[in-house]
Amino acid sequence: MIARLFQQLLIQPQDVAPSDDALEVIGTFNPGVVLHGGEVTLMVRVAERPRARRTGFTPLPRWQAGRVVTEWAADDEIEPLDPRVVRRKADGLLRLTFTSHLRAMRSPDGRSIQEWDVSRFLPREPWEEYGVEDPRIVKIGDRYWITYVAVSRHGAATALASTQDFLTIDRHGIIFCPENKDVLLFPEAIGGAYAALHRPTTAHPFCRPEMWLAKSPDLFHWGSHQPLHSGRDAWEADRVGGGAPPLRTEAGWLEIYHASRRPQAAGVVGAYTAGALLLDLEDPSRVLGCTRQSLWEPEAPYELTGFVPRVVFPTGIVARDDRLQVYYGAADTSTAVAELPLADVISSCVAS
Amino acid sequence: MIARLFQQLLIQPQDVAPSDDALEVIGTFNPGVVLHGGEVTLMVRVAERPRARRTGFTPLPRWQAGRVVTEWAADDEIEPLDPRVVRRKADGLLRLTFTSHLRAMRSPDGRSIQEWDVSRFLPREPWEEYGVEDPRIVKIGDRYWITYVAVSRHGAATALASTQDFLTIDRHGIIFCPENKDVLLFPEAIGGAYAALHRPTTAHPFCRPEMWLAKSPDLFHWGSHQPLHSGRDAWEADRVGGGAPPLRTEAGWLEIYHASRRPQAAGVVGAYTAGALLLDLEDPSRVLGCTRQSLWEPEAPYELTGFVPRVVFPTGIVARDDRLQVYYGAADTSTAVAELPLADVISSCVAS
Repeated sequence: MIARLFQQLLIQPQDVAPSDDALEVIGTFNPGVVLHGGEVTLMVRVAERPRARRTGFTPLPRWQAGRVVTEWAADDEIEPLDPRVVRRKADGLLRLTFTSHLRAMRSPDGRSIQEWDVSRFLPREPWEEYGVEDPRIVKIGDRYWITYVAVSRHGAATALASTQDFLTIDRHGIIFCPENKDVLLFPEAIGGAYAALHRPTTAHPFCRPEMWLAKSPDLFHWGSHQPLHSGRDAWEADRVGGGAPPLRTEAGWLEIYHASRRPQAAGVVGAYTAGALLLDLEDPSRVLGCTRQSLWEPEAPYELTGFVPRVVFPTGIVARDDRLQVYYGAADTSTAVAELPLADVISSCVAS
Repeated sequence: MIARLFQQLLIQPQDVAPSDDALEVIGTFNPGVVLHGGEVTLMVRVAERPRARRTGFTPLPRWQAGRVVTEWAADDEIEPLDPRVVRRKADGLLRLTFTSHLRAMRSPDGRSIQEWDVSRFLPREPWEEYGVEDPRIVKIGDRYWITYVAVSRHGAATALASTQDFLTIDRHGIIFCPENKDVLLFPEAIGGAYAALHRPTTAHPFCRPEMWLAKSPDLFHWGSHQPLHSGRDAWEADRVGGGAPPLRTEAGWLEIYHASRRPQAAGVVGAYTAGALLLDLEDPSRVLGCTRQSLWEPEAPYELTGFVPRVVFPTGIVARDDRLQVYYGAADTSTAVAELPLADVISSCVAS
């Protein structure tokens, strides 16, 4: 069903300049995407690490007072868990091997980038020191609302920001406490309340991975949490979480989400794939249908190989007539676009 | 410093009747406590398990449609993690070996129970099927607000209920999604916003255990999450979370919290102890002082031995002139009361 938009990527690490000469860009992926003034604006996660190398040491960068500082951990004092994460043997705590910030880009047609550096959203708060990641954007009223992951020594939480022009961006603090990622706002209030999908990750697993629904009077404060969708089949056994913000269709709210398989061995990252959910327009806690198989799988070379291999991770969506353009991260390295017929996606969602 | 109120317990399992003849009460502990009409009202967590025994099988009870149903798991299909929790080998998921509900009790003097069964708060929602646990109560306006842990196949979350009389109790849904326990409301709005302490537990430990602060316009929806206090010393290395609701004192908000040591070996439960925090009255995100050692430790026989050995777990507080009565769970089995001079507790909180 899936047609990759081009035989080329939309954004690659070599396309953008690092935020500091001492850093190199290793990822430009997982973009938030929204229509803004008739054009597509993207906020792309830019992952960086120190350019320097020291034999026997691993760099652990973090943001401090507006710039990246790097600790060098001796390799025998840490245990690598995957390409992204190490565990310090002394205290068992995790650190990232890179940092991320967000960069706004402009694309008149959604198929090519015209302006690469509209603005930068850099880590600033104590809870952002390891990076700001994976933005999702919706327009509500006259503002664009950005949910993003804030990672720090306090864990991985989701924070909220908003803007009217992508030049001045206001912060609104943490709206979902650790550990919670992949928070997506619905683009309008439903029955008088705003709604969001979120993905709590628990230390004590009573359940398979789940996506939850929450409600809010004001976008800043959240309650009425309830479980929405649980991974059932093998392709969604390890993780299930929101992807692109829900899209209003005649058939219901269409949610393109991500799932991952259970890693087969330590250090091997399970394949991240995409699925779809259809939720009732008036009551999004009612699941009308879901895909029983993944909608698309890592297949292209740039999806199979990269910083984290075998990953497609949808984060943005634009509807153009009867076709969907889904923006996604490929192998935690680059940004790609898939084009899907809306009717086919809807009909792939079956009642359970 | 600590004086146990009596040489006897306030509430023991044999004091209360089970909710069903097929069950036995194994715990009456971790009570929410509040002054109500000049008397002390307690909501006590009542833990039950099936009275029946089957050799080679472990009972896994849960609430369903107003009563407890029990699955019997073959002992070779499960792995006991501690007295409370087993892991199913087939799917790796956790189950509890007991269920909990809440029972309101009346004590004119706070030192003896006069009415044992004012009302019962039983699991009803899908997210309560494994039990409702560890209530905390504050009075705000003309209502009593009860935060409690809701445990189910969806994980351990915190939900909100309220009442005017402890006879009719209204539910307000989940206010902190999994995994989050030990949510305490401040008993008044501060600077126009309600406030709560909470204890998120993350699967991926970037940090030592932490207590967080959140704010709300209405008690139902929460945001502005920020880290407040992190376990530093050995006695608080494994867990740190709110205990009794914060108490307004002239020196600041006094929070009697719980901490636990890191278990030394699998299956051994670390000692839970009590500490104190002092927070700024106008801005409770400012920590004015904290105890550098535990305030009290499991010492009495009923604290050292029980369903979970070596536990004191404060959950309620009543100030009487210059003395504090702190209600706490002893060994996850019984309810006890400690009496502490307010001035001594305040002076034990030192600036860091």
